[in-house]
Parts: sequence; C-alpha cells; structure tokens
Amino acid sequence: MAGASLAIGQRSLGDRSKLFPLLPVLTEGCPATSDAEMQYPLEIDYAYDRVDPALFDQPPLPGLARWAPLLPPLAPGLDLGEGGTALVPADDLGRALGFTGRLLLKDESRNPTWSHKDRLNLCTVSTAILSGAPGIAVASSGNHGAAAAAFAARAGLPCVVVTSEGPQPSFRRLLAALGAHVVLTDADNRWPVLRRIVAATGFMPASNLTRFHTGNPYGPEGYKTIAYELFLQLGRRVPDSVLVPTGYAELLYGLAKGFRELRLLGLADRVPQLLSAEPAARGPLARAAGSNAAAMEVAPEPSAAAGIACTVGGYRGIVALQESHGRALTCSEAGMAEMQARLARHGYYQEISGAAGLAAGAEVIARGEKLDGIVVAILTSTGLKDGPMDVSDVPVCAAEEVEALIARLQAEGETGAP
Amino acid sequence: MAGASLAIGQRSLGDRSKLFPLLPVLTEGCPATSDAEMQYPLEIDYAYDRVDPALFDQPPLPGLARWAPLLPPLAPGLDLGEGGTALVPADDLGRALGFTGRLLLKDESRNPTWSHKDRLNLCTVSTAILSGAPGIAVASSGNHGAAAAAFAARAGLPCVVVTSEGPQPSFRRLLAALGAHVVLTDADNRWPVLRRIVAATGFMPASNLTRFHTGNPYGPEGYKTIAYELFLQLGRRVPDSVLVPTGYAELLYGLAKGFRELRLLGLADRVPQLLSAEPAARGPLARAAGSNAAAMEVAPEPSAAAGIACTVGGYRGIVALQESHGRALTCSEAGMAEMQARLARHGYYQEISGAAGLAAGAEVIARGEKLDGIVVAILTSTGLKDGPMDVSDVPVCAAEEVEALIARLQAEGETGAP
Repeated sequence: MAGASLAIGQRSLGDRSKLFPLLPVLTEGCPATSDAEMQYPLEIDYAYDRVDPALFDQPPLPGLARWAPLLPPLAPGLDLGEGGTALVPADDLGRALGFTGRLLLKDESRNPTWSHKDRLNLCTVSTAILSGAPGIAVASSGNHGAAAAAFAARAGLPCVVVTSEGPQPSFRRLLAALGAHVVLTDADNRWPVLRRIVAATGFMPASNLTRFHTGNPYGPEGYKTIAYELFLQLGRRVPDSVLVPTGYAELLYGLAKGFRELRLLGLADRVPQLLSAEPAARGPLARAAGSNAAAMEVAPEPSAAAGIACTVGGYRGIVALQESHGRALTCSEAGMAEMQARLARHGYYQEISGAAGLAAGAEVIARGEKLDGIVVAILTSTGLKDGPMDVSDVPVCAAEEVEALIARLQAEGETGAP
Repeated sequence: MAGASLAIGQRSLGDRSKLFPLLPVLTEGCPATSDAEMQYPLEIDYAYDRVDPALFDQPPLPGLARWAPLLPPLAPGLDLGEGGTALVPADDLGRALGFTGRLLLKDESRNPTWSHKDRLNLCTVSTAILSGAPGIAVASSGNHGAAAAAFAARAGLPCVVVTSEGPQPSFRRLLAALGAHVVLTDADNRWPVLRRIVAATGFMPASNLTRFHTGNPYGPEGYKTIAYELFLQLGRRVPDSVLVPTGYAELLYGLAKGFRELRLLGLADRVPQLLSAEPAARGPLARAAGSNAAAMEVAPEPSAAAGIACTVGGYRGIVALQESHGRALTCSEAGMAEMQARLARHGYYQEISGAAGLAAGAEVIARGEKLDGIVVAILTSTGLKDGPMDVSDVPVCAAEEVEALIARLQAEGETGAP
C-alpha cells in the first residue's frame, strides 16, 4: 500500500562511513569495527531523499506494512496486524505521581502476542524469509520468544526458543501452541546453545550472538514505528520526553531512530528526550553512560523485571541517549512492583518490566526533579505473562462470607445503601 | 471530540413501541412485557435523524468516545483506549479450511484487558457513574469480570466479581491487581449471590439478574463499534457474513445493531448475515431458533468454552438472527480445540471460546455448504487466560538434548545445513 522499502544497506554504528549490503545479515555486529573487546551493532540505512512525506498523512492504524518505505523489505503475508497501539491520557495518574505536564501511556500490550516485541520480530522474520534462512532461533525469557514464534508460525518456518528459567505455565503453553521448539537451559548456557543451533541449522538468530549486544540489525527498525505513531497520535508533534523500559536498548534505539527520521524528513523540528529505565540492580546502560563506555557488563544481581534485567548492554543504548540528549535512569525493585500495582488500579495490568519506565520517572520526580511537558511512558507487555502462579496470597471471598463483604463495603462508605 | 450522545431512552425488545427514559437503568428487563415465564431485554435508542454521517469519515482508531453520538453517555476520562482492533487477512487459513471467498480475523484480544468485553464495560461502567451507583457487580468466569474490574478501577469505583470455578491463576491475579473483590461460589449460586450484593449495596450489575438473559441494556451498545470498525476497515463496505462466538448473544446483538444502524444511516445498502457459534454441548440460542422460541434453557453439559457455554439464552440472540437473516451454528468441543491449535499455528493464540466462530464456520464447510464472499471471524480473547496451568504435557527440550533436536530438525528438512 505504501510503496517498496527504500532500505539501501546495513550501516555500522562503530563507523558510520561503513555501509554493507542488505544481505547477508550481519548477525555478529559490524565486521570492520568489532573485536574481542567490543562489538558494534549495525542499523539499516535508507534512501531518505526518496521518501514521500505523504507517508505520514495516513492514520496510525495497525499493520506495519503501511510504513514499508522506511522499513526493511517485509515478507508478503506476514502481517499479524501488529502496531497501531493505543496512546491513552493518564493525567490523573500523572498528577498523583507529581508530573507537572501531561502524561500519556503507549500500551504495547495491544499487539498480536501482547508485547512490543511483535514489531521487532515482523522485521527479523521477514529478513529470515528474504535471506532464505530455514528457521528462526532466539534466546528469550519471555516476550521476544513468543513474538518470534508467532511470526515464524505465520511464515511456516520452524522456531527454536532457548530459555533459561521455566517460563510461566501460561507462557510455556503459548510457545508450544505457536509450534516453537523450546530448549530449557541455565542462564549462562543460553547463548552457547543458541550459537550451536544457529551454526548447525542455519536458522536466523532473532537475538544476540556477541558478548556486548549487537543483535539482529533488522530488529530495532520495527520499533521506529512507535515514534511514527506517537507523532501522529499527538497531532503531528513529538512528545517532550519518553520513558522507555530498557534491556538491551533495542526499543530505545528504535525510538531514537524513528524520531531522528521524523526530524530528518522535516516533519518534526526536534527529537524528544529519551529516558531509559533499567532495574537498578543491573543497569548496564546507566553504568556505561556514567563512565563514558560504549557498553558495560554487570553482575547478575537479582531482579524481578525478567524482560529487561540484562547483565550486558550494547552500543545502541549509548547512541540513543546521545542523539536524544537523553538520560539513563534506573528504578528500584520496590518502585517497579509499586508502579505495577498502581497502573493496575488505573486499569492497566502490565508485566513488571512494563512498569519500569513510569517507575523510573516517578523516582526522578520523588527526588525533586521535574518532568515537564508531554511525557509518554511506554508500557511493554501484559501482566498475564509474569505474575507468580502461586495465588495463595490472592484474597478470595467464599460464598458464606458474602454478608461480611457487604458489611465491609457498607462500612467503607462504598455503597449507595442507607 | 465527536459530539454528545444522541441516546433518547431504553426501548423494549418485547414491544418496540415502549420507550423508557435513560434512567433508571432497567437491569431486570422490560417491565412492561416481561413476566415469570419470559423476560425481554431493552436496547438504547437514539435520535438517528440528528447523526452527522461525517462521523464515519474518521479512521477506526482506538478510543470508543469517537463514536459518542451513537453510544450511551460516556463518563469523561474513563477511556482505556479500547477498540480500534486489527482486522487481519487470513486467506491462507481460509483456503485451507475451504472458504471460497476471503477470510479476515477481527482480533479482539487487542483490547485493554485483551478481550472484546472492554467495549461492553466502558458502557456499563459509564452508566453506573452517570446514574450515581456506588460500585459495579458482575457474575463472570473470565473476560467479563476482568473488563468490569478494569473500568471500575479506572473510575475509582469498587467492583465485586462473583465467579464459580477458581479462575486460572493468572486471571485471579489480574482481578486482584485491578482491585476487584472476588467472590467464589458454585455455579448455581452465582446469580443469587449477585442479586443479594446488588440489593444490599446498590452496585450497578454489569451482568444478568433475570432467568432468561436481559443483562444491562447499556452493555451491547459498546459492541456496535465492531460493526463500525469493520465497515471502515473494509473500505466502507460491510462483509458478507460474520462468525460470532456466542454466549448470551450480547456481542451478536451489538454487531447486528451496529450493522442495522449503518444501513439506517444510508452508509451501507445491506446487513451481513450473522452466524452465531455456540458450543454444541449447550447452544440455547440454536435450540431456541430451531423451535421458534424467544429463549431456551438447556442442560449444563460439559464444555471447555468457558466464555460462551451458557445454559440460558435471551431474546437478543433471536432478534439478531432475524434482523440479519442469520443462522445459529454450533461447534463440537473437538472442533473448537482443533481450531484453537490451528489459529496458533497461524500466529493467533486465542482462548477456546475465541476460536468458536471459525470452528463453527469450518464445520459448515466440512458438511459441504459454502461460505462465500467476505467472511469475518471475530476472535474474542487471548489464550493466555484459559490454558490449563498443568504444563507437564507441554514438550520441553533439555540442554543435553539439543543435539538430538538439531538432528531432528535436519531430518525434517527444516534446516539450511547440507
């Protein structure tokens, strides 16, 4: 509908003068600038001078193929109606948290497998198909594996998901239903197993193969569409800042790049400040940013935020923060848990990781700083995925206790009875 | 944004000449035409001559307030970004199932609590607020309770969910997180408990209080928006038929009414044929339709389709089928389970009930009948809600079995290795 992809090659983030062809997919970082010490990712570059600005005259509906000129070549028929997620005002919550401007929530749980990862995997699975890979392989503790498995299923390609802890029962059943081969191993062994599978089968990796994160160059391109949607949902303007739950910083980078493109195309006059939000227990990006490093490795301190608790970062995060004059925030475990509960009391039941952006923003405000203007918090995934399955702590009222419940509701002044 | 509601009153489906004021909400059916034998529901009527057809010049984005003139008065700020769900072509699946025309999937799992019920509960909770009710009460085994609890949370109103079986752990945690009071009782006792709570507290019932289903007259109005969205998503045309998972037929009725309104407003020249899909084990609507009854009660034969396995129907289903020259289909338990698996292999992980529409359609075709033209199947809710939590039957590959997995993938010709 929107014309063909204008992608021209894979550009190194280690040295932007280096442009590699679109294929083969460089799944182990930029070969010209990476070594054993540090690995630099790549991004997809486009013939921007050929982009018709009328591309942005369309409404931000689902189906990312509508952004085809600014995405890698997409495999036909792979569409699951991804994207086009709701942006919802949360001024009441914002005021309660001390936001001085407007707060809006971008609800990425409204995707085909109920997380933002669908946007990434549309691109990686498309790339696998177009490069002739016979399958998809991914190391993931959750959303990423589900999204890869869904698009692989849609494409009729086999998918291997290498996971460390036993996924939640509901999640394991999801992967099985989507037809994925699930490999269970310990945390340290995930990447060696992934490498072995990729080497032996030729499957396209949808996640990382290097020490510092480089990932699949095609993946973060899918996240650019969140920036495009925000621009249109806000009435052709960009927000002042965006709170972004951050693991390997692919989402952060995709957002930065999308906003960069909007400015490049003359549609926006500035880019928003991006605020990355990592669990304080880990936070490799915050530590790298704080010490002017390209990437850092940190100890595997415990964190409940399974979707974003990473021990290594990658250079994409640093670039995204630099480009957006951004800040690397962290949030406490208690802060994330409290924000998860608070969001639910406003109607949004998010995974713990999905509450990290808003939790980090709230911690900044609680320290006496201000978050002014239009602030968007990205919510990444449904809470149905990561709640503990032992619900013995969840209160339930038996039928014989109904009168006591009624009395309690009446005492709380919560009823219309006299 | 779209102007005020044009609602004028509650009109009886038992006798359409009877129009009652908008308030009080008639939560026990039409008082003029109901008796102990049969209870007739009501719908909301509008000043259709005052509807600006330009209402339908907007894109079908999330946020049902955009349809305000054709909805009951909505409480300000209750928006969770509901609706605006993706319509995705599934021609490959359609061909495999023997559809001779086009098959498209309307994925209602892309709502704030991941089911179509959000559309209904925006309306019932709005109505509670505008009528001054101090809370919400609902009998539900799943989606309905979650959606009611989410909108009640957003509104700051207490919500009681009366449920029969222990909900899935993930689901029970969802209800608790949303702040609902969960009452657990046996199936027969749900409605007496609900009645007692409503009587004692003045809470607004978001579900049914009568023997045959009448429900909350305001609820099905929210489902009309699916018809509006389909009309726009198909390029200002209506589909030829719609496959609708059907329990109490509120969704079916909302769809029928939405399409009726599009014709009334001169936007569409016909209404699609609606095909209700009930579990064959119950199927009160199919039995009522087959015996020219206004509603039927059936035995509680076992069914895995918790969302739609009802023992009583209501008159709305009959009206919807009559208006649309529709058909009451049923589907076997095996057919639903197989369709759930099949949808997942196409990337859509649905609850069992959500696969019922397509399962019923496939059974019709398997009998040698045709479903021509543009067919839309409504998918109602995420599969994350109702899978069994015992996953000991779900295959997982241990790390030491990876070589065997690789060999298996190679033997299946699924790899690019030589």
